[in-house]
Amino acid sequence: MTERPQDSVNTNSSRRRFLGGGVAGLVVGLQTSASLAASPPEGKSSTTNISAVDQSKVEAVHAVNSRLFSFCGGLTGDWMVTSVRAICGETLPDAERLHIHQGLGNAHEALSSDTKWCLRGVTSNDRYVTRPEKELLVAKQAPLGRATATHAALIPIRKSAAWWAMTQDERRALFEEESQHIKIGMDYLPAIARRLYHCRDLESKEPFDFLTFFDFAPSDEPLFDRMLERLRSTREWSFVDREVDIRMKKVTPT
Amino acid sequence: MTERPQDSVNTNSSRRRFLGGGVAGLVVGLQTSASLAASPPEGKSSTTNISAVDQSKVEAVHAVNSRLFSFCGGLTGDWMVTSVRAICGETLPDAERLHIHQGLGNAHEALSSDTKWCLRGVTSNDRYVTRPEKELLVAKQAPLGRATATHAALIPIRKSAAWWAMTQDERRALFEEESQHIKIGMDYLPAIARRLYHCRDLESKEPFDFLTFFDFAPSDEPLFDRMLERLRSTREWSFVDREVDIRMKKVTPT
Repeated sequence: MTERPQDSVNTNSSRRRFLGGGVAGLVVGLQTSASLAASPPEGKSSTTNISAVDQSKVEAVHAVNSRLFSFCGGLTGDWMVTSVRAICGETLPDAERLHIHQGLGNAHEALSSDTKWCLRGVTSNDRYVTRPEKELLVAKQAPLGRATATHAALIPIRKSAAWWAMTQDERRALFEEESQHIKIGMDYLPAIARRLYHCRDLESKEPFDFLTFFDFAPSDEPLFDRMLERLRSTREWSFVDREVDIRMKKVTPT
Repeated sequence: MTERPQDSVNTNSSRRRFLGGGVAGLVVGLQTSASLAASPPEGKSSTTNISAVDQSKVEAVHAVNSRLFSFCGGLTGDWMVTSVRAICGETLPDAERLHIHQGLGNAHEALSSDTKWCLRGVTSNDRYVTRPEKELLVAKQAPLGRATATHAALIPIRKSAAWWAMTQDERRALFEEESQHIKIGMDYLPAIARRLYHCRDLESKEPFDFLTFFDFAPSDEPLFDRMLERLRSTREWSFVDREVDIRMKKVTPT
């Protein structure tokens, strides 16, 4: 039940500039998403030019969720990317390395032209698992970051509108009773360690709903592939409308 | 199943500055939360000074979730605040008006010294409701923004760590089978209209887990109070560790 990956994470706790003012947890940015622009304004429209806002003040009031992690593909990071493959929908640009940050990450790097993409997600409460399932998982699973786990995968997934329109009981029945998502994963514990990050309810518009990071020993990669094959053949996966499979090797310190 | 409040919302769809570059949905800010600062760094720490980042570039890549809404207490807005009362935990500062924005809202206003607080949340998929319950709700409920609904309440709530540590089946059993949260709410439909916003999984650290906005005719306010009394006496509410009750009247155009 730890909230942080146990390895390959750079924290930036030295940067403490939160002023603790009356404006709680405020992020400022532009009103920019295509879907927003497409919907007709309701009520009166506000047209103030926000570019005039004092940026030092903008930064000062921004506090970051401690469960947020950023996965940035570019030229730096502890993981060497060996392949980027679209399983369904649009792929992501190739990248040489993956850098995992707690929080929003290193802004300089994230914005550098070397960074091809930055995906963010938060660890959160369980959405489908029951107490008996949870106890089996906890008893059998291994943490991320084992010394032997020098291979890894980051698999971002988006599910369709039809999935999200379902009620909780319908999604649970599809997820487990029909597709055995938890049971299948259990067959590969403790060899395959994993952590799930949620992106759908961030305030920024994210290209995926979930990110899952897996790590394992190189000799267990065929096992990992078998697990994915089984999951991808379930009815739950018919609701996945975008999936990218990014494989990595741990960079050996030189 | 509409995603937007039907009244008192200012959209800002005229501001289309998203450049659609390779860096997907990136927000840049400071690594500032107290809880982050309190946790010991793991791995190597990054110390780049991000204040040197070009702010125009920072803004350009920020795309906003179209399900995000901001509720700002200050001097402007369509709702006149009549009371701000802590039910549990710390209160919020008094404010004269409430301004509801789609997206991050009007940054100028949100950052002005007149703004006392800004709470944000996203509409999202159902977390507990079953299909039969959903059908009863949809058949009986009214939308926000009826002409007669000139009184309103915004009730931000935070639940305890013990709540979030429960598995889905445990939370559902407490929420409905034991506390009858859905059934109680149903007794007040269609008089009391409501919409729920989720804050716990935003990338910024929010002071609450949920915001609920309710509107109703002035003559139905005693009914609304009765509903809250019933909900607050349930075992589910023993997991609420902060709750503020903000009452409002619609501002009559002059």
